Amino acid sequence: MTFAQRAVSAAITAASSAGEFPTGFAPCASSAVFTSGTIAVSEAEIIDFAVKYDPQAMHTDPEAARSGRFGGLIASGWHTAALMMRLFATNFLSPASSVASPGIDELRWLQPVRPGDALHLRVTVVEARRSRSRPQEGIVRSLIEVLNQDGAVVMSLKPISLIACRPTA
Amino acid sequence: MTFAQRAVSAAITAASSAGEFPTGFAPCASSAVFTSGTIAVSEAEIIDFAVKYDPQAMHTDPEAARSGRFGGLIASGWHTAALMMRLFATNFLSPASSVASPGIDELRWLQPVRPGDALHLRVTVVEARRSRSRPQEGIVRSLIEVLNQDGAVVMSLKPISLIACRPTA
Repeated sequence: MTFAQRAVSAAITAASSAGEFPTGFAPCASSAVFTSGTIAVSEAEIIDFAVKYDPQAMHTDPEAARSGRFGGLIASGWHTAALMMRLFATNFLSPASSVASPGIDELRWLQPVRPGDALHLRVTVVEARRSRSRPQEGIVRSLIEVLNQDGAVVMSLKPISLIACRPTA
Repeated sequence: MTFAQRAVSAAITAASSAGEFPTGFAPCASSAVFTSGTIAVSEAEIIDFAVKYDPQAMHTDPEAARSGRFGGLIASGWHTAALMMRLFATNFLSPASSVASPGIDELRWLQPVRPGDALHLRVTVVEARRSRSRPQEGIVRSLIEVLNQDGAVVMSLKPISLIACRPTA
């Protein structure tokens, strides 16, 4: 992990490991930005995912896709989301404190993802606070942007994440 | 396809095939509700998806998951989303008129999805109108609920869909 990856991982685990949540978390959390490693997208994987989960010709048939709206094969938006999760889990999630996610707001597919692209994440922590209903858990809101090798944002989303934290003093 | 599935498919293709969009679509669209066929979720597929895209123990390791928050293995939320897309594409999307989706609002994971579950969709068409910026396209907003065999809603989301439609007269 790079320093930035360690930093966000540390931020996300701060609640459980350092007992400083939410005050220790907040200074880091407000508008802290972190980037991930990259993941490559192959034509074979685009087709394999789409045959199983999103069987539309623009995702499964390179020939048909060439004459379609996007001028070539593009990844299912749900495949891009799955690759985002892979990058997020590998780079940022702590097994010790990750609990669950109740959901996602404003998921947007902004640019097509094509075979040969290499994706990475830019994660901005928007808010981190202790849950009112479950004080043993913290709620983190963030903006995740998925960027390609040209720096274009291909997808963005605003997840809500639950993390374990120490009991209040 | 059941009658209901044909009906929503017809509703979604109405724009391009019948040239009646948006006026012909609207009466059907406002609060029309349709249900899909079912798809089964196996432990092997839960683990396979998660190893690739969401490698957390609650999704990949039945033994570790048993002592975790959910008392057993559960599907990655992104796997549930992919299964939703499979049901949606197979039951409702028309190759002739489906264009793309710019995004999803309010995706919520409400209940765990476990091995052996069988999922189906309930789709409520909320709004259907012609695009102002691209009048050759229609914009459909819907509420998709994913239900399990007990009728519990395990996931819900509000997708935005673009469909092809005939030029205005």
